[in-house]
Amino acid sequence: MREFLAVDAGGTASRAVVVDETGRCLGSGRATGGNPTSVGLDGAAVAVADAIAQAVTAAGPGATAEPILLANAGGGGEPFQAAILQRLEPLGVRGPFLPVGDLLALFCSGTPEVDGAALIAGTGAIGGAIRGGRMARVVDGTGWLLGDAGSGFWIGHKAARAVVDHLDGGPATRLTEAVLERLGVEDDRVVVDGRPRVMGRLVAALYALRPVELARFAPVVFALAGSDDTATSIIRDAVEAQAALLRRVRRFQADGPLVFGGSVLVEGSLRLDQELLAPLLEAADGATPIPVADGLVGAAVLALRAAGIAVDEARFRTVQGGIRSAAA
Amino acid sequence: MREFLAVDAGGTASRAVVVDETGRCLGSGRATGGNPTSVGLDGAAVAVADAIAQAVTAAGPGATAEPILLANAGGGGEPFQAAILQRLEPLGVRGPFLPVGDLLALFCSGTPEVDGAALIAGTGAIGGAIRGGRMARVVDGTGWLLGDAGSGFWIGHKAARAVVDHLDGGPATRLTEAVLERLGVEDDRVVVDGRPRVMGRLVAALYALRPVELARFAPVVFALAGSDDTATSIIRDAVEAQAALLRRVRRFQADGPLVFGGSVLVEGSLRLDQELLAPLLEAADGATPIPVADGLVGAAVLALRAAGIAVDEARFRTVQGGIRSAAA
Repeated sequence: MREFLAVDAGGTASRAVVVDETGRCLGSGRATGGNPTSVGLDGAAVAVADAIAQAVTAAGPGATAEPILLANAGGGGEPFQAAILQRLEPLGVRGPFLPVGDLLALFCSGTPEVDGAALIAGTGAIGGAIRGGRMARVVDGTGWLLGDAGSGFWIGHKAARAVVDHLDGGPATRLTEAVLERLGVEDDRVVVDGRPRVMGRLVAALYALRPVELARFAPVVFALAGSDDTATSIIRDAVEAQAALLRRVRRFQADGPLVFGGSVLVEGSLRLDQELLAPLLEAADGATPIPVADGLVGAAVLALRAAGIAVDEARFRTVQGGIRSAAA
Repeated sequence: MREFLAVDAGGTASRAVVVDETGRCLGSGRATGGNPTSVGLDGAAVAVADAIAQAVTAAGPGATAEPILLANAGGGGEPFQAAILQRLEPLGVRGPFLPVGDLLALFCSGTPEVDGAALIAGTGAIGGAIRGGRMARVVDGTGWLLGDAGSGFWIGHKAARAVVDHLDGGPATRLTEAVLERLGVEDDRVVVDGRPRVMGRLVAALYALRPVELARFAPVVFALAGSDDTATSIIRDAVEAQAALLRRVRRFQADGPLVFGGSVLVEGSLRLDQELLAPLLEAADGATPIPVADGLVGAAVLALRAAGIAVDEARFRTVQGGIRSAAA
C-alpha cells in the first residue's frame, strides 16, 4: 500500500503526517514555526525537517518514495525546499515537494467538498474562493500596511492608537491600563514639555516593536469587548471587516462549505456573544462556519488527491480522526 | 546695536537669518533639509551650518557673539549642535544654541501674540496650545503608526489601501491609475494564482517604500477630491481629523490667533472648496487661520525675546518683511 507525507508549515508550528492510501495516520510530527518570511529560511527549514523526521521515524520509510505535499503561505520557494531536503538526506527523504497555499490546505482541513470558501484571521487576514478543489480567487492577505482588515494586527494597531489618543486628551479606555502593563511602561501623567510623561515612553516602546507585533494586543481587546466602549467598538469594526471579506469571497464562489481558521477568527470572533458576532454570521448567509486549527488534515487530503486517490466523506473522516488522535 | 542669529532646521529646508535688535534683516541663508531624524545627523549638520554660513557672511560677524536660536522638531540634541558648531569654527560662530520646538517657532512666524494655537500637517500632523509665549500643550505628532491623523502619510496610506482594495475586487477609483503610474507598475489584470497579476507587483512596490513615503500620494488625492468618490471621502475624513486635532488643541487654549503650517494644511486643505473645508473652519470657531511657510520668522522673534527685546506688532512686521524680501 502506498504511503504519503504531508506537511503544514505554519507561522507558529510546523506539522507533518504520514498517511496510507486509505487515509489512516501512520505517524506524525510537530516542531516550531516553519514560515520562512517570519522565522527566516534556515530556521523554518530546520523546523519543517524536524517535523518530517518525527513523522517518518514513527511511520517507517514507506512514504519516502512519494512526492511530499507542502502547505505554506508561499514564502521560500526552491531554496526553502532544498534547505529542508538537505537535512533529511540521512532519512532517505528525497522529495520532490508539491507546494500548495495555506488557504487551500486550510479549506481541505474542514471539508472533503471541492467548492466553497475559506477565511483566515490571525496576525493577518485572507480569504479564498475554492472551485473544483483549486484556489479560484484570493482576497486580501496584502499585509499589515495595505490590507488585513479585521486581523490581529489591525485590532492591536487600533488598540495602540486608542491608548495613545487617550493619553493625548482623547476618550478614556481601559485598554490603556492593559497595554501599558503589557509593555511595562509606568503610567506617569505629569505634563513635561506640553506632554504627559508616559506618552514619550509609550510611543518609544511601541515604535520599538515590529509593526506586526502590535497583534499581541488583540486578545486584550477581545477580553474587554462588551465592557469597554473603545474595545467594543474596535471589535465591532473588526467583525464587520471580517464579514466584508467573507462577502467579497462569496462573490467569487457563492455555494459550498465555509471553513474558518486563525486564532482571531476561531478563538476571538467565534466566541463573541451573539450580538457582536451577528454581522459575520449574516455574511455567512446560512452556512455554518467550520473552525479548523491548522492545514495539516487538508495537506494530507491534498497529498492523496495529487496521487489520484479520491477523498470522500468517509476517507476524510479517517484522515481527520487519525490526525486528531495523534495530536491528543 | 546687538545682532542675533536664528535658524529653522526643517525637514525639507534649513533656513538662517541675522536680525538686529530692531528686527531688521541683515542677511539670510538657505540649504537642504536639516532634520537629523530624516536626513541623518551629519547631513543635517552640514545643511544647517551651510545656511548659517550664508547668513553670517552676508551680515558680517556682529551676530557671532550671541546665542543662536535653533528651531527644530527636537531630534539630534547636543551631538547635533556640536556637529554644526564644528563646521562654523572658521567663521567664529561659537554658539551656544537656544533650542526651541518647531511648533512654537511656527506659531511665532504667524503672529506677535503670545497666546494661541498652532497646527501643522505635512508628512505628519501635530498641534500645540501656546500660552505666555511658551508651549503649554502638544497634541498628536505621535508618528505614522500611532497618530498623525489627517497628515500626508495618513492620506497617502488610505489612498494606497483603496487602490489595493480596488484591484482586490473593491470599489473602483481613479486613484488606481494615478498610483500605479507614479510607481511605474503596469496595470495587468490577468488573474494568476487567484490574483490579478498587477496586485503582487503593486504590493511589492509599496512595501519597498519606507511607510512615511506613502505621503507622496497625498497630492494625487487632493487633486482628485471632488471628482472621484474615494478621493473625496479620504479628503473629507482628513479634514475632519484636522478639525478634531484643532478642537483638541483649543480645549487647552481657547483664545488667540490660529497659525497653520505644513504643505497638507496650507497647500492642500486651505485650497479646498468651501464645502470640503467647512469642518476645519467650524473648528477654528471664528479665528481666521494664518498660513505660514516655515518657522524662520518665529525663530528670529524668539531670538529677540530671549535677549529681553519685546516684539510688538511693528517689530514683528519688520522681521517678517525683511525675511520675505530676502526670500523673494
